Amino acid sequence: MTHALPAALDAELSSLLGADGWRTDAAARRAHGEDDSRQWALPDAVAVPRDPGQVVAIVRACRAHRVPLVARGAGTGTAAAAVPFAGGVVVSFARMDRILDIRPGDRCAVVEPGVLNGDLQQALQPHGLFWPPDPSSAERCTIGGNLACNAGGPRAVKYGATRDNVLGLVAVTGAGELIRCGGPWTKDATGYDLTHLIVGSEGTLALVVEATLRLAPRPQAQAGLRMFYRDAAAAAAAVSRLMRQPQVPAMLEFMDASAIALLRRNGTEVPEAGAMLLVEADGDHETLPYALQALADAAAGEGLLSLDVAADGAARDRLWAARRALSPALRSIAPGKINEDVVVPVSRIPDLVAAMEALSAESALPIVVFGHAGNGNLHVNIMYRPDDAGENARAHAALPRLFECVLALEGTLSGEHGIGVAKRDWMARAFDAPTLAAMRAVKSALDPDGILNPGKVLPPL
Amino acid sequence: MTHALPAALDAELSSLLGADGWRTDAAARRAHGEDDSRQWALPDAVAVPRDPGQVVAIVRACRAHRVPLVARGAGTGTAAAAVPFAGGVVVSFARMDRILDIRPGDRCAVVEPGVLNGDLQQALQPHGLFWPPDPSSAERCTIGGNLACNAGGPRAVKYGATRDNVLGLVAVTGAGELIRCGGPWTKDATGYDLTHLIVGSEGTLALVVEATLRLAPRPQAQAGLRMFYRDAAAAAAAVSRLMRQPQVPAMLEFMDASAIALLRRNGTEVPEAGAMLLVEADGDHETLPYALQALADAAAGEGLLSLDVAADGAARDRLWAARRALSPALRSIAPGKINEDVVVPVSRIPDLVAAMEALSAESALPIVVFGHAGNGNLHVNIMYRPDDAGENARAHAALPRLFECVLALEGTLSGEHGIGVAKRDWMARAFDAPTLAAMRAVKSALDPDGILNPGKVLPPL
Repeated sequence: MTHALPAALDAELSSLLGADGWRTDAAARRAHGEDDSRQWALPDAVAVPRDPGQVVAIVRACRAHRVPLVARGAGTGTAAAAVPFAGGVVVSFARMDRILDIRPGDRCAVVEPGVLNGDLQQALQPHGLFWPPDPSSAERCTIGGNLACNAGGPRAVKYGATRDNVLGLVAVTGAGELIRCGGPWTKDATGYDLTHLIVGSEGTLALVVEATLRLAPRPQAQAGLRMFYRDAAAAAAAVSRLMRQPQVPAMLEFMDASAIALLRRNGTEVPEAGAMLLVEADGDHETLPYALQALADAAAGEGLLSLDVAADGAARDRLWAARRALSPALRSIAPGKINEDVVVPVSRIPDLVAAMEALSAESALPIVVFGHAGNGNLHVNIMYRPDDAGENARAHAALPRLFECVLALEGTLSGEHGIGVAKRDWMARAFDAPTLAAMRAVKSALDPDGILNPGKVLPPL
Repeated sequence: MTHALPAALDAELSSLLGADGWRTDAAARRAHGEDDSRQWALPDAVAVPRDPGQVVAIVRACRAHRVPLVARGAGTGTAAAAVPFAGGVVVSFARMDRILDIRPGDRCAVVEPGVLNGDLQQALQPHGLFWPPDPSSAERCTIGGNLACNAGGPRAVKYGATRDNVLGLVAVTGAGELIRCGGPWTKDATGYDLTHLIVGSEGTLALVVEATLRLAPRPQAQAGLRMFYRDAAAAAAAVSRLMRQPQVPAMLEFMDASAIALLRRNGTEVPEAGAMLLVEADGDHETLPYALQALADAAAGEGLLSLDVAADGAARDRLWAARRALSPALRSIAPGKINEDVVVPVSRIPDLVAAMEALSAESALPIVVFGHAGNGNLHVNIMYRPDDAGENARAHAALPRLFECVLALEGTLSGEHGIGVAKRDWMARAFDAPTLAAMRAVKSALDPDGILNPGKVLPPL
């Protein structure tokens, strides 16, 4: 397996990075070609820099040879943003994995991109702090990957997603320049906000080499509520009410009728219902009961069938068991799953759910909808057997119908997974031509030769 | 008073906008040339568009003739961002002042840029919602100005500043293209975040013609605490403690020893002390006492001299009277004031205050420090008599010392006022050359001919 890199580049980076920092062997290349999208492509080499200076050198060398660069965290992305379809060099941040500073007095931490989300959370625990983004891959995914994809999770409804919890970045642009934006402060009206522009750009504008993260105080305790509703409309109306009162829920998750039916078929003890909401409150022991009462009051209304309270951790774990049982249960329906994390305005959740019911009937495929209702960020799962040609075709034909529906409901393509290549060709539907042109102009400004993760996020012209 | 615009441009925009939408008379030009920086320059014309289409036409026409455009809200900015030093056309949004939609179920509002912040708050009140940015000019300033400068205010410590409370924008770039970014949703991993890039860019990247604003539920009640400390170090340590516990204060304001001494001299009843903190909590009637207790616990510690509780609104108004008395009291020291809203990490507040005490002694000028301590966003007021040549010179010589000090303390130039021209030449100190170059590249991407508010934010090359 020979690589296609210019010999001069190979020699330069091999000499710069050494044998363990510059890998062109088949094993390393194979190991850095896929992510959780289950797509795959072979890079020509894997660079494993140790510090920002090496990242600058890598980008400059690749730029000189017009060789593509794909940044890689832990490869847990689901939109194929880390898959090197254009070949070139994968830059792994596996050796830039230090927590550089934890500053409790300034409520921030400074990290390298290769730090695992879960490792950071552990390091913050003794300080009574946490970093809010909580993707389900938290134990395995890196902060750099979270930054690239603007990762979220259920806690985003109260604490925000990654973009909302980053104060500053040091990054290397596609021009090979090290830039520093933001810093250890929480209010800033000084120049252009490049920090939040780079977050969520999936490695197409710059490679993050250091991040200053906003931390939140760890609440003393959690408590939960679980509600069943007659239908999705009643549940969505409750979501609006829950989000309009000042006791912001720390999580607010939705499950549609097909998810509930699936759980029942799989032996999870839940009643028959048209929709379920799971709510979590966090706070002090003294105030939590009041918060829970305010949330229960907001949850009550037309179409509420039942409400369970979990006042302590153990009871809460029981209530949340239904949510945890869902992903394994999904696998029992069909081995194949198209899972899209679309976003609609909260008021349009019932329309989305109704449209998916219709689409399921029309496609003769199970479609299960659940997710982060407080943000209108729902995971739509189209279930199919990949080895059944008919189901395969119908599943992939249903996908554009989903995106059309989401855009018609004033929603957007992704809330926390990102675009990668998976949703890239829908960008021209989500944005009009002038807006896409503005994005392309910004891309050219920071990556003039288009070497950073080419073919991702923006559709080809 | 003749203007210097090309006759073709004058004719085109006059015909497009009509007599009340295209003003080249002396009165209109004079009225649109200044802002609260007390700087002044004469535009060649004032355009007052009625809709986004007219804004597009104005930008395209000006671009064709390479004529500068300066967007203008209510002229309450303090950094001269709205002053048309390069002449050209001031675009007033006075006739684009409609609240287009209030969507309580989606917790957002859609507004034109000319809406006054205070008018929006009034319209939201019946819905139990508010828009968090609360600059002291709220009754007079426009949402468009808030967006341009990333305006803040005391509530930002809990609710964020303007950038944190904008979900989407419709804007006209310097290329004359209407772009649409973000929308009525609160979680987004779809393409580049142009929304938050445009916020705070002071009209140099695009003119906002419509904004979708994130709203917050209005809390039932407020309560407050006022603490006096031995010195700024003790108060700053308390700020760190207050910010590290989960009962996030809704305001957290600081006053230094010179501010306290000034209030005492002016007859406000406050004790002798080295520093003061004002804390506000908001929430439900039931939980507010607990929140207040948690905040009082965090406020207690080494160097605390006294703590007053204001459990209800009237008592709270009495405690906050000291803060309100401060601005008028400042005028009693000296008629001239250089007021900079610098930012330092919370842990460096004592260093900033100590440095300002030293600078005051050295400059033989009163320097009063107060502001939004929870964000490390402090207003440093250098007081002087403008007609005293020595004081004037010493005050202006003290200013660079302040910025040097802030940057040495890992801080930044502005937290909520913006850069305009007032702090523009310090940008090259706040950012290194590659970062400034990246900002310039982004500027060129969205405003290729440099017609939008030239000379603002970025220092000349």
